[in-house]
Amino acid sequence: MYSVSVRDHLMIAHSFTVEVFGPSQRLHGATFVVDAEFRRRDLDADGIVVDIGRAAEALKAILSDLNFRNLDDEPAFKGRNTTTEFLARVVFDRLAAAVKRGDLGPGANALESLRITLHESHVAWGSYEASLGG
Amino acid sequence: MYSVSVRDHLMIAHSFTVEVFGPSQRLHGATFVVDAEFRRRDLDADGIVVDIGRAAEALKAILSDLNFRNLDDEPAFKGRNTTTEFLARVVFDRLAAAVKRGDLGPGANALESLRITLHESHVAWGSYEASLGG
Amino acid sequence: MYSVSVRDHLMIAHSFTVEVFGPSQRLHGATFVVDAEFRRRDLDADGIVVDIGRAAEALKAILSDLNFRNLDDEPAFKGRNTTTEFLARVVFDRLAAAVKRGDLGPGANALESLRITLHESHVAWGSYEASLGG
Amino acid sequence: MYSVSVRDHLMIAHSFTVEVFGPSQRLHGATFVVDAEFRRRDLDADGIVVDIGRAAEALKAILSDLNFRNLDDEPAFKGRNTTTEFLARVVFDRLAAAVKRGDLGPGANALESLRITLHESHVAWGSYEASLGG
Amino acid sequence: MYSVSVRDHLMIAHSFTVEVFGPSQRLHGATFVVDAEFRRRDLDADGIVVDIGRAAEALKAILSDLNFRNLDDEPAFKGRNTTTEFLARVVFDRLAAAVKRGDLGPGANALESLRITLHESHVAWGSYEASLGG
Amino acid sequence: MYSVSVRDHLMIAHSFTVEVFGPSQRLHGATFVVDAEFRRRDLDADGIVVDIGRAAEALKAILSDLNFRNLDDEPAFKGRNTTTEFLARVVFDRLAAAVKRGDLGPGANALESLRITLHESHVAWGSYEASLGG
Repeated sequence: MYSVSVRDHLMIAHSFTVEVFGPSQRLHGATFVVDAEFRRRDLDADGIVVDIGRAAEALKAILSDLNFRNLDDEPAFKGRNTTTEFLARVVFDRLAAAVKRGDLGPGANALESLRITLHESHVAWGSYEASLGG
Repeated sequence: MYSVSVRDHLMIAHSFTVEVFGPSQRLHGATFVVDAEFRRRDLDADGIVVDIGRAAEALKAILSDLNFRNLDDEPAFKGRNTTTEFLARVVFDRLAAAVKRGDLGPGANALESLRITLHESHVAWGSYEASLGG
Repeated sequence: MYSVSVRDHLMIAHSFTVEVFGPSQRLHGATFVVDAEFRRRDLDADGIVVDIGRAAEALKAILSDLNFRNLDDEPAFKGRNTTTEFLARVVFDRLAAAVKRGDLGPGANALESLRITLHESHVAWGSYEASLGG
Repeated sequence: MYSVSVRDHLMIAHSFTVEVFGPSQRLHGATFVVDAEFRRRDLDADGIVVDIGRAAEALKAILSDLNFRNLDDEPAFKGRNTTTEFLARVVFDRLAAAVKRGDLGPGANALESLRITLHESHVAWGSYEASLGG
Repeated sequence: MYSVSVRDHLMIAHSFTVEVFGPSQRLHGATFVVDAEFRRRDLDADGIVVDIGRAAEALKAILSDLNFRNLDDEPAFKGRNTTTEFLARVVFDRLAAAVKRGDLGPGANALESLRITLHESHVAWGSYEASLGG
Repeated sequence: MYSVSVRDHLMIAHSFTVEVFGPSQRLHGATFVVDAEFRRRDLDADGIVVDIGRAAEALKAILSDLNFRNLDDEPAFKGRNTTTEFLARVVFDRLAAAVKRGDLGPGANALESLRITLHESHVAWGSYEASLGG
């Protein structure tokens, strides 16, 4: 299995709503350093997993929709705890949709799976990965 | 599959007992930067894989039992080479037991697997991963 | 010149009030990975710059007063842009005061200078350094 | 599953031959920081996955054959785009061959799989992994 | 003293012309991860050292002029060894000129000094720093 | 001012002898990731601060004399606490002597200063820097 990964980042405010989170129930924030790993069984004729320039642009576009925002105010996350692992899934779903729409090029439909990792600090990170059906 | 990871560290002395290890047969030591990755198929109702605060505390408690020690003097490791990969398994077994005892909260019994990685330097690391049966 | 550095982190929400900041005028947030570098011309009789355990505790105490908060609501920062470099100075002032109060031990009054660095992402960081008069 | 990883690096020139690569069609170059992860189901009698010294030497020998070269001039890569993911496969094939030849010691034939990751910058990397049949 | 740093990168081919460089006399290449540290005695009225967005853009523009090139073909470097430390000076001179031209905003003329660091691998880097006369 | 830095590492056992060190009074150990930064006002005729290959070899030779040892048994450190900052000075003194002996080439006598940093973990490090009189 081959993979290609790109890294970008995101800066948001949010709060959590349950007791388990302790002081993080207060409005606070995070920088998430975001890695997107694209996986594919074979390389295409050009020797690539995915056009890395388009992959980086697609990730940046998705992060831009979330960046510099208070996630507590986003209707899409109403009633949800926007934890690191939850947001990894959000980025996954949006990037998987971009792949299916052809934003990463026609060859990207051969991608087998995708893993999104959000680093919330130097000592904690979360991820979501799943098949893309490629 | 979702995951959450936490990082801590450990400083120990030890020596190895076989020829393959060359100068590391002498008593020496290591800092191990330790990552624990908890994996789970679905998030719980709060949107988490595991209570990250309790996960970090459980890891710290396990590392405290090993920290600032000469592992050659530990009865538990009698006759064993305490290599990086061997110690990854030790941390795995103790953290898996903590999960089963409920130290990470009742929801942690839904965890599917766990991966422990010990970084012994900027150019070498080892890991052990296995199912938790969650 | 000798130095000892310790690292910790901080997660906050904030917004900026001037045009130059563009989308960061919206309420958002950041994880700051914080390094405190303590400098001293000579080691003390025990061979140390500063008691590293007390240094780490003093830094953690200062970050705890800021952690998991919306800095826009903090009276201390009223009317100020809480930029990375501004916050580096805030941490410096509080840690310098802790040194002077003796929180890091009596030997810490020999410290010559202190540098605080806040990493806001993998691609941007800011710092403040100054003499401690030691 | 256990693993041991070692890191080294490589500095090469190359160019790409298709339109998708834009300015990287010009002759340019890269530093690749290379990680080799060796995986094995059980430890051997000495408590190791692989002799880490021999693993590091075998990786270095393979990288030396590529290092400080213009890959466009290498007959082995004639007509191929030497992308990060393509080169991850090249290193994999050569290291897998070294394992089979016994260069990493007789115990290395118990290795189950190998993953090679090439970091081309702080924001992009690629990998290839496959079974070693161990 | 305050500072703000931004990071970007650059991928080039080059060769060296003297014996001391051994195999690096052959045409090869490098990824340089480039850090620009801007220093200033006091913050401006907005609480900043420099407009970080404009600083990052100015650095990117300078790196774009060098990126994806064979430096042996650049007239500006005729007869020079484009070592890591030499290139740190090149980036310094061009970024200092951008500051003087006002590309980083009018406030940037208060900058006191600038340090450019180029990381050529995980185990080697070089830098150049000097006053900006601010 | 120009600089060039190289990184290597060291794995040792040791213990401390005073109360301030708490559990680190027990025999334990550390991996030290060691950075040596060589500084010089001007580049030489080849465009370098120092021959980076010889610099890396000289550092490795010095670390080899300490590596895989119990520092409590070294006569050179009798009665001393081998703290991170103390060891930074040891490496400095030995590397400065190598510079003076000409081990880094005749041009190295133009070096102005040297900084040695020892990273004992991902959250703590120490350094020593001083003039080389170049």
